[in-house]
Amino acid sequence: MKIICSKSNLLKSVSISLKAVPSKTTMPILECILIDATTNQIKFTTNDMELGIETIVEGTIEEKGMVALNAKIFYEIIRRLPDNDVTIKTDEKFAATITCEKAKFNIPGKSGEDFAYLPMIERDEPLTISQYTLKNMIYQTIFSIAVNDNNKLMTGELFEIKNNCLKIVSLDGHRIAIRKMPLKKDYSDRKVVVPGKTLNEISKILSGEMDDVVSIFFTNNHILFEFDQTMVVSRLIEGEYFRIDQMLSSDYETKLSINKKEFLDCIDRATLLVREGDKKPIIIHITDGSMELKIDSAMGSMNEDIDIEKEGKDILIGFNPKFLIDALKVIDDETIDIYLVNPKAPCFIRDEEETYTYLILPVNINQNQAR
Amino acid sequence: MKIICSKSNLLKSVSISLKAVPSKTTMPILECILIDATTNQIKFTTNDMELGIETIVEGTIEEKGMVALNAKIFYEIIRRLPDNDVTIKTDEKFAATITCEKAKFNIPGKSGEDFAYLPMIERDEPLTISQYTLKNMIYQTIFSIAVNDNNKLMTGELFEIKNNCLKIVSLDGHRIAIRKMPLKKDYSDRKVVVPGKTLNEISKILSGEMDDVVSIFFTNNHILFEFDQTMVVSRLIEGEYFRIDQMLSSDYETKLSINKKEFLDCIDRATLLVREGDKKPIIIHITDGSMELKIDSAMGSMNEDIDIEKEGKDILIGFNPKFLIDALKVIDDETIDIYLVNPKAPCFIRDEEETYTYLILPVNINQNQAR
Repeated sequence: MKIICSKSNLLKSVSISLKAVPSKTTMPILECILIDATTNQIKFTTNDMELGIETIVEGTIEEKGMVALNAKIFYEIIRRLPDNDVTIKTDEKFAATITCEKAKFNIPGKSGEDFAYLPMIERDEPLTISQYTLKNMIYQTIFSIAVNDNNKLMTGELFEIKNNCLKIVSLDGHRIAIRKMPLKKDYSDRKVVVPGKTLNEISKILSGEMDDVVSIFFTNNHILFEFDQTMVVSRLIEGEYFRIDQMLSSDYETKLSINKKEFLDCIDRATLLVREGDKKPIIIHITDGSMELKIDSAMGSMNEDIDIEKEGKDILIGFNPKFLIDALKVIDDETIDIYLVNPKAPCFIRDEEETYTYLILPVNINQNQAR
Repeated sequence: MKIICSKSNLLKSVSISLKAVPSKTTMPILECILIDATTNQIKFTTNDMELGIETIVEGTIEEKGMVALNAKIFYEIIRRLPDNDVTIKTDEKFAATITCEKAKFNIPGKSGEDFAYLPMIERDEPLTISQYTLKNMIYQTIFSIAVNDNNKLMTGELFEIKNNCLKIVSLDGHRIAIRKMPLKKDYSDRKVVVPGKTLNEISKILSGEMDDVVSIFFTNNHILFEFDQTMVVSRLIEGEYFRIDQMLSSDYETKLSINKKEFLDCIDRATLLVREGDKKPIIIHITDGSMELKIDSAMGSMNEDIDIEKEGKDILIGFNPKFLIDALKVIDDETIDIYLVNPKAPCFIRDEEETYTYLILPVNINQNQAR
């Protein structure tokens, strides 16, 4: 095999491919990037058996062939080459020579025979949305998936298409994050759970441009994202996702509007008094026109008032500050609405159109001591 | 005590003070910052017993007094306050209340009685240089102090004033870094060894501006840096520094001039084939007009030619690539001169005026295999 590509094209494609290279594996072939120049296109493939990426690289094929190279070493070499044309050439033993200007690298390669190819996905009825939207919807929900995999379903996100609306949901047992977006076309109803890892990696590859689109295809076991010159295939998580509708209620006893930045800064100040791992709640006292935040810890205490607009009852409620911070950080609105029922019921942060909904369970506090 | 300072002034002073707060200590008082408002100046002092910092904070004293507060918590609080005036008030039990706009923190404090004051330093005959120069001279030498303290003297840098020239030297047994600067005034001869930690911290505080100056005072046991509103006192390392003059020779068999960036990039490329901790040398073959770099490792091999200008003999020599990289990174010159004697003798990278000299010991290589 002999191919010539520009350093910048190579670097872009190898960076994308790296996202599906496992950091630890017992199968050395999975640490490789498959360079396939057997047709008239140069294709890079990587696969960690859950997530697979195929991307097309612009370049010239001078001699057809195929080779599997250690992805990390290949990436490190490309990254450090001068900004010029790079020649990759292999011999009959799959030893690769990478040349750029006067620099010449020799690294061993593999035949690629053992490489685990990506599953074939039937492409019918794609869901097409802007890369910006998908990236944003993932960013605004992914933080509330579960970190440990005691419950596999909690480590993924629900992608649901229903009534021409795309809904993405994540939850970890203490909170729920929901993002909704109306779709411009008619789509069949769909409900799949996509691994969090896949979504994390794909949001790093997506361009984030409003004008770039991504097509999403679903099968029973896989989801396929197709965009630019790249194709990302992921297994789905099996099982029935949690029924969250019964947890969402639009009833409330207290509604308040608050400046998001002021609220976030204030919680941020309060949490410096909480050592990591310590489960100190932040106590929020809502009265007419004002919200008082309080925290008490071994390091000291802090309290602050924030101006709010309030409807309904006064309330004294405690929260894990991290859960509030996580949600507030991803909301773009300047002013947010918070809905509360009582000190033991979840609070809801949501906009009027419910494009986003963040449900957070409160922490039990002693109502008398906290006052 | 009651003082009022702007958040930005406080933040600047606390950040400086933090540099002399030990990360681990058995003496809790050392984790504190001493706020002294007993006179008509607000002074912050920190001291880890080796390094001490005193800095003056602009602000208003409404009630004289003194308190010692946990430096890290105090810093975290100040950092997160709104950008406005901050009031710090203590009661008779040294509990401090920090207020800014509507935010109010309460943290415990100490009397400051047990605080270890900075040693009194007699200020005679200061060495005055620009902060930029000092910062730069430290940056260009500090990387070659020893990391472990088997030999205490190797963990510091020699500051020598002789013949109206300031010379800073560091060495770790494998290499030597020397920076020289002519002084504008007459100074008495001096020779002290300053702890590397002190120099690291001070170079973070120095402004790096050509027009800002720093005055340096020496005593038998201490060095004092005075600049802006800040005073840094450090113990010196005791003992006789190494005699390096006998290691420096101006004889050479081979002299070459090379583009610094090309050389550095090339070594950088080569080292990606070396796993950390692996002691693979980079092999350099110098012939007329060209230098060939080679490296061979379990991961693969690399070679590259670089154009050079050469005087004298051909030579084949091996180096620890890290030592070359460290020196090349801090040199500002576009083209550098390297002087070599034989494959077992140190190489010298130096400019004509010897404002910098980097001596690097070679690694033994098998002259036949390497060819």
